[in-house]
Amino acid sequence: MFQNSAWTGLLFVAGIFWGSVECGIPQVGWGALVGCLSSTLSGMVIGKHRSDGENGLWGFNGTLVGCAFPTFFDETLLMWVALVICAMCTTWVRRGFNNVMAPWKANSLTFPFVFMTWMFLLCAKTLHGLPEYGLSSPTLDSTFVSSGVPDLTQLITYWLKGISQVFLIDSWVTGIFFLAGLSICSYWAAIWAAIASALSLALGYLYGADPHSLANGLYCFSPVLTGIALGMTFYQVNWRSALWCIAGIIATFFIQAGMNSLMEPFGLPTLTGPFCITTWLFLLPRYKMDVRSNPDHSDWPVSHAEGALTSQQEDDMKEKDKIES
Amino acid sequence: MFQNSAWTGLLFVAGIFWGSVECGIPQVGWGALVGCLSSTLSGMVIGKHRSDGENGLWGFNGTLVGCAFPTFFDETLLMWVALVICAMCTTWVRRGFNNVMAPWKANSLTFPFVFMTWMFLLCAKTLHGLPEYGLSSPTLDSTFVSSGVPDLTQLITYWLKGISQVFLIDSWVTGIFFLAGLSICSYWAAIWAAIASALSLALGYLYGADPHSLANGLYCFSPVLTGIALGMTFYQVNWRSALWCIAGIIATFFIQAGMNSLMEPFGLPTLTGPFCITTWLFLLPRYKMDVRSNPDHSDWPVSHAEGALTSQQEDDMKEKDKIES
Amino acid sequence: MFQNSAWTGLLFVAGIFWGSVECGIPQVGWGALVGCLSSTLSGMVIGKHRSDGENGLWGFNGTLVGCAFPTFFDETLLMWVALVICAMCTTWVRRGFNNVMAPWKANSLTFPFVFMTWMFLLCAKTLHGLPEYGLSSPTLDSTFVSSGVPDLTQLITYWLKGISQVFLIDSWVTGIFFLAGLSICSYWAAIWAAIASALSLALGYLYGADPHSLANGLYCFSPVLTGIALGMTFYQVNWRSALWCIAGIIATFFIQAGMNSLMEPFGLPTLTGPFCITTWLFLLPRYKMDVRSNPDHSDWPVSHAEGALTSQQEDDMKEKDKIES
Repeated sequence: MFQNSAWTGLLFVAGIFWGSVECGIPQVGWGALVGCLSSTLSGMVIGKHRSDGENGLWGFNGTLVGCAFPTFFDETLLMWVALVICAMCTTWVRRGFNNVMAPWKANSLTFPFVFMTWMFLLCAKTLHGLPEYGLSSPTLDSTFVSSGVPDLTQLITYWLKGISQVFLIDSWVTGIFFLAGLSICSYWAAIWAAIASALSLALGYLYGADPHSLANGLYCFSPVLTGIALGMTFYQVNWRSALWCIAGIIATFFIQAGMNSLMEPFGLPTLTGPFCITTWLFLLPRYKMDVRSNPDHSDWPVSHAEGALTSQQEDDMKEKDKIES
Repeated sequence: MFQNSAWTGLLFVAGIFWGSVECGIPQVGWGALVGCLSSTLSGMVIGKHRSDGENGLWGFNGTLVGCAFPTFFDETLLMWVALVICAMCTTWVRRGFNNVMAPWKANSLTFPFVFMTWMFLLCAKTLHGLPEYGLSSPTLDSTFVSSGVPDLTQLITYWLKGISQVFLIDSWVTGIFFLAGLSICSYWAAIWAAIASALSLALGYLYGADPHSLANGLYCFSPVLTGIALGMTFYQVNWRSALWCIAGIIATFFIQAGMNSLMEPFGLPTLTGPFCITTWLFLLPRYKMDVRSNPDHSDWPVSHAEGALTSQQEDDMKEKDKIES
Repeated sequence: MFQNSAWTGLLFVAGIFWGSVECGIPQVGWGALVGCLSSTLSGMVIGKHRSDGENGLWGFNGTLVGCAFPTFFDETLLMWVALVICAMCTTWVRRGFNNVMAPWKANSLTFPFVFMTWMFLLCAKTLHGLPEYGLSSPTLDSTFVSSGVPDLTQLITYWLKGISQVFLIDSWVTGIFFLAGLSICSYWAAIWAAIASALSLALGYLYGADPHSLANGLYCFSPVLTGIALGMTFYQVNWRSALWCIAGIIATFFIQAGMNSLMEPFGLPTLTGPFCITTWLFLLPRYKMDVRSNPDHSDWPVSHAEGALTSQQEDDMKEKDKIES
């Protein structure tokens, strides 16, 4: 499952299973497998881009669906059927969204997973056959819990959980697995994941975010993804892109906090929505982040005209890198 | 009004009037006429594509607005003024949305009606002069009603109402009128409408949807439209597109259930929003559904570059077929 | 700050300061300056389009952010930090949104301000460090206040406040400053602002909008912007575009009313969102508003193919005019 390096993938799988067993919901691990298989198989049946499937481009949205369903729904047969349907849908929803975004050389990131999972989670309130489990009930007002001061050990735990929550796993051990997996593929990916989790944790304490959410890493997983995406996937590593990436991490923190309120009336989790939105906002301006001065921005309209044909392929290549995260 | 066959149109008009009189709200029938006239006239005044108007492309959104307003608002003079304004707006909103979607060869379907009607329905809470009628009040939580087992006669009634609700009519007789109207133009349209209504009714009972909504066809009308769109309008009829269409009907069912919760905090009906969203999700991947193997997907970027000039015309042709539904 | 005529700008600054002092929140004036500086500086650091910055294209979203933050948040150090971050973000969010809309020759208007401010306002509920001030609490149902009949003096006050609320200032004196500033640059801008505010005030009384909101100009500021945009910025002044503009003002009124309900479950103000949405809906159909008969609409697909390269520049030119409003 999704890696270019088989070892990274193995560590990710190990991390997901460890975390799901530790949290007492081993079905999350099985869900990840089923989700990955469903979306990959449907991609094989319907699609012809064999190379996509081989590199896990069909699988990563399905895997996330597979992690999310057993986390938020009661485990029933109907849940597993819905999981398979939802995971299959991500395959073509991803292709559709990528088509829409191709003229701007952006791609759908994890949004196919986010969009379809939101839709199915919303069903929990209207379909008796999909009872929710662990979803917050819809509210209009949130009250603030007073925040004690955490010690260093706790902070490190929270920081690692921020990384494991990328796959909805609430376990610091999984965080170590993920960091190890990332550093096999790219040191920079691991470094940016670490910086992003720490920075958003600090912002969370500074701006007085809900301490319970902070302790479970819920303010960190989207910034972690943004950090990897902006810090080393979509731009070359240099000091300009590093500043850009830090700005992106800060923006993700506030958009995470904002979306937490936005989703409250629906009782929905944000999933990795804040990551998708912020990364789009930071990719769409199409600033060049070369260190060498490159003063013309005229590339945008030109590439819009000429680049259409190759943008799909470029996207795929970028995404190939991206999903190693 | 919207048909290529005058007989289909006549049966639709008859169906709308029968249903609106049966439900005790004959103004729905008159609203449909006024809405159709308003949007067609404003299209004639402002536009130059005469052929659009002749084929009813301006009228169908206006007609839906005309069915929706008397259903959801108290009948007052101000309501009729707002109906005319809203119906007129759909003419240029449709053109604007079609322009936006032209590069992807998609079109706005019934979304101009959905979008503008949502906006005006939301006004019911803030404008004293547009008092609501029949809108559910905004809630955060829905409780499940225990579902009795319906007998066969009831099931057939629900199934036919699922078809009549396409025009917001709650009457099984209207459903028969609509099926008859469809089969005059195309047997496949009638067959897919029948399959879609039955399939989503079955899914509704399987997944325990609200039995009251099921009985009124509220889970079926969007799948009916998706079925006609994917089954015979946008793709040729063959076994590949048939499987694709069934996947689309299933997805529409879940998106309908999800949007039912999504709209609850606003007290809004989903209208045909689930149909629009699902059909876009299934058109945007631009899979080829030919039975002959046609392994290259490279058409997308090419057609993006070349096809811009003709896409508008192609859309119009497709839509011409589509709106017979 | 944002003007082509320095005198217009001076009158706007004077109006903002007068209004903010009159309302007892002088920090709004300082916020406007800080916001304008933040977004312009970040534009200078990151961008190369020097001419943009010189004409205030970076500054106007930042200025609006600067007016909004002290209006809706308690004044704390953390609020000022967030204000600077949000204002800086508008610079690249504006560029990103403009890139997205370039193929349709539309631009982002004030939406970068609206989008980023919504996100940060939502944070008020989840971040302890950004306590809200003056935000309505989230509700599901609004009750109507009975409306007394205002006399002429009151009506004129409301009408002028409708203009001052463009910058979130609740003061009729500021309205006069703004009208004067507009008429220096363009009589038509001032005339359309006056017509739009009066027309939406009249519609508000006709349709029974909340009298408290009407009295504070909250139904008028979006129509004022739509009036200036459609009446003289994006189209030439003639009788066809005048009718189009009046239709736009009426549509903005209803979309304002609708968005007031839409935002209620989130406790958010609409800001200038209704202006952005309506103006897009009226620009995207790309109707020609020449008085000379110009019957072919075929320009759209052609310009889509060829126009990509120049659209950015055209946008900038149009926007240069626009922001004088």
